[in-house]
Amino acid sequence: MITTDILIIGAGPTGLFAVFEAGLLKLKCHLIDALPQPGGQLAELYPKKPIFDIPGFPSINAGELVDNLMEQIKQFQPGFTLAETAVSLTKVDEDWFEVVTNKGTVHRARAVAIAGGLGTFEPRKPEHLENLEFYEENGVEYFVKDPEAFRGKKIVIAGGGDSALDWSIFLSNVASEVTLIHRRNEFRGALDSVEKVQALKDEGKLKLITPAEVTKLSGEKKLESISVQTEDATIEIPCDAFIPLFGLTPKLGDIANWGLEIEKNAIKVNNALDYQTNIEGVYAIGDVNTYPGKLKLILCGFHEATLMCQSVYNRMNPGKKYVLKYTTVSGVDGFDGSRKQAEKAVVKKMD
Amino acid sequence: MITTDILIIGAGPTGLFAVFEAGLLKLKCHLIDALPQPGGQLAELYPKKPIFDIPGFPSINAGELVDNLMEQIKQFQPGFTLAETAVSLTKVDEDWFEVVTNKGTVHRARAVAIAGGLGTFEPRKPEHLENLEFYEENGVEYFVKDPEAFRGKKIVIAGGGDSALDWSIFLSNVASEVTLIHRRNEFRGALDSVEKVQALKDEGKLKLITPAEVTKLSGEKKLESISVQTEDATIEIPCDAFIPLFGLTPKLGDIANWGLEIEKNAIKVNNALDYQTNIEGVYAIGDVNTYPGKLKLILCGFHEATLMCQSVYNRMNPGKKYVLKYTTVSGVDGFDGSRKQAEKAVVKKMD
Repeated sequence: MITTDILIIGAGPTGLFAVFEAGLLKLKCHLIDALPQPGGQLAELYPKKPIFDIPGFPSINAGELVDNLMEQIKQFQPGFTLAETAVSLTKVDEDWFEVVTNKGTVHRARAVAIAGGLGTFEPRKPEHLENLEFYEENGVEYFVKDPEAFRGKKIVIAGGGDSALDWSIFLSNVASEVTLIHRRNEFRGALDSVEKVQALKDEGKLKLITPAEVTKLSGEKKLESISVQTEDATIEIPCDAFIPLFGLTPKLGDIANWGLEIEKNAIKVNNALDYQTNIEGVYAIGDVNTYPGKLKLILCGFHEATLMCQSVYNRMNPGKKYVLKYTTVSGVDGFDGSRKQAEKAVVKKMD
Repeated sequence: MITTDILIIGAGPTGLFAVFEAGLLKLKCHLIDALPQPGGQLAELYPKKPIFDIPGFPSINAGELVDNLMEQIKQFQPGFTLAETAVSLTKVDEDWFEVVTNKGTVHRARAVAIAGGLGTFEPRKPEHLENLEFYEENGVEYFVKDPEAFRGKKIVIAGGGDSALDWSIFLSNVASEVTLIHRRNEFRGALDSVEKVQALKDEGKLKLITPAEVTKLSGEKKLESISVQTEDATIEIPCDAFIPLFGLTPKLGDIANWGLEIEKNAIKVNNALDYQTNIEGVYAIGDVNTYPGKLKLILCGFHEATLMCQSVYNRMNPGKKYVLKYTTVSGVDGFDGSRKQAEKAVVKKMD
């Protein structure tokens, strides 16, 4: 069982920054995310695209912002439960909440902050494929959680966007054989990636079959081969893994059944004070919440995360007067023993 | 007369970032600040000190954050009225407000956003100096607004902190003679600055008199000399300017008389929606405002500035439905004709 002060559901920019503000208040955080890495849609959907409205950054690539946030919070040693989704929320007693994931991981926390963005990013699955569910986790993967799992294996990737291109390029150095299948001849992605795939194909390091569609999965206990329908033939390709990368759709998912007040697919909060939901001790911050005047912007999530942490602190320390200190003045003390601080002004005698 | 959409009183980080968010909504901004440069206390009080709680920056020097914000907003061409303080606010008619400064500059705007931080930074003046007011603007200056004004002049600086040290160093290359006076032998400032002053003194480029105090100002129509009391003598120093740099104290000042609801030296706002004050069309954002749960943090000011701009947009465009666009998707169109945008995904045929 994992125990922490604030359990954050969603490791996007809002959830990550909450770790920093909690840390300043000596509160520990643990994050759960359905994706295999932190950063939410910034890391998963557009890591190489620039964002122009993060205050203080005339332009910053989404992936770089995630890296910066990870660097900013590392001294507060957040825990992560990745590639799992939170399925249930229970109030154990006055002091503790329990959240269990789809893999059965049990978390207990003093407060829960839902920072789920637009929802859990669920993969768009291929349609009309018999026995698809049977092969899930037996050869069919919708995310590349650990590239090393494919070392020396024969893999087939399907899709025509950045994810399909990027993973084809990356895994061509890891897998023994990579086949990329797309139902059109055109690929939609960064020019650089499209050209790299073309080059790998020309060097014989990657097989490309277009226009084509996967029509059948075969194998007794696990995936052993797939059937591909091209314009004029059906090809059988032996393989260890099939990775369809058809994009992700956000779904509020199980959170919708936790008894929270929901409005237009978002969680209603009382923004006047601390972004708390109708369940005391459960907060919703960032794109997942709604209140009058709400804007779904990262910079708003940062503010909401900060006020949420203050509220949790006050809940956990009733009656204790908290005095806000500026980091420039007080410095930052990490849970790992590190200390960041401004250089002290020097008093020096002048001759 | 200066006219604009949003008149922002206070050019600290919150006021500066408001220009960006207003620009995305095609609203023009003009800023008034009592200090001679933008950036508020970040630029004036601790430009070289690090801040650790700006989201996405594990550490950033205050001056660098100001530079970044100026870069981020430049395409929206904000106007500035600097080194002037706003003294009056009048509602001209349903659509326009008028704000006049202590120098008589008249501004008209559709909305007013007070982003005044802790207040106007007013210089701590030397005590027990007869006729001090007579010499103000006739040789006595509390800010170095334009260093060039001191070229070839004889100047006396008093103070023992970073400002006194830094301006002594800078002006030793501009003025014909710089004398630094401090009532103690010890200086409190960055080690680097203390050592530079020592070196300049050793090279004869700067006169240092410690421990000592300025006791008298003389001159018929303007300042011509000062008297300095040391431990064992009174010295008369001919000079064109006397610059006492004894620090700044924030004062809400004239804003307190504008009919706004004030609580604990801050302006009360309705945070539930848009940080509007009790005067419709007048907003208060950043450290200058107060509401339940308020935290005086720069990142909160960024959020408040953003919601304020949305509210002004809705006021100016009643009934018009505004659809929020992400900068990553829509790009940013500057008022100067510039355009920032993410590279478009490429659709390319693969052979």
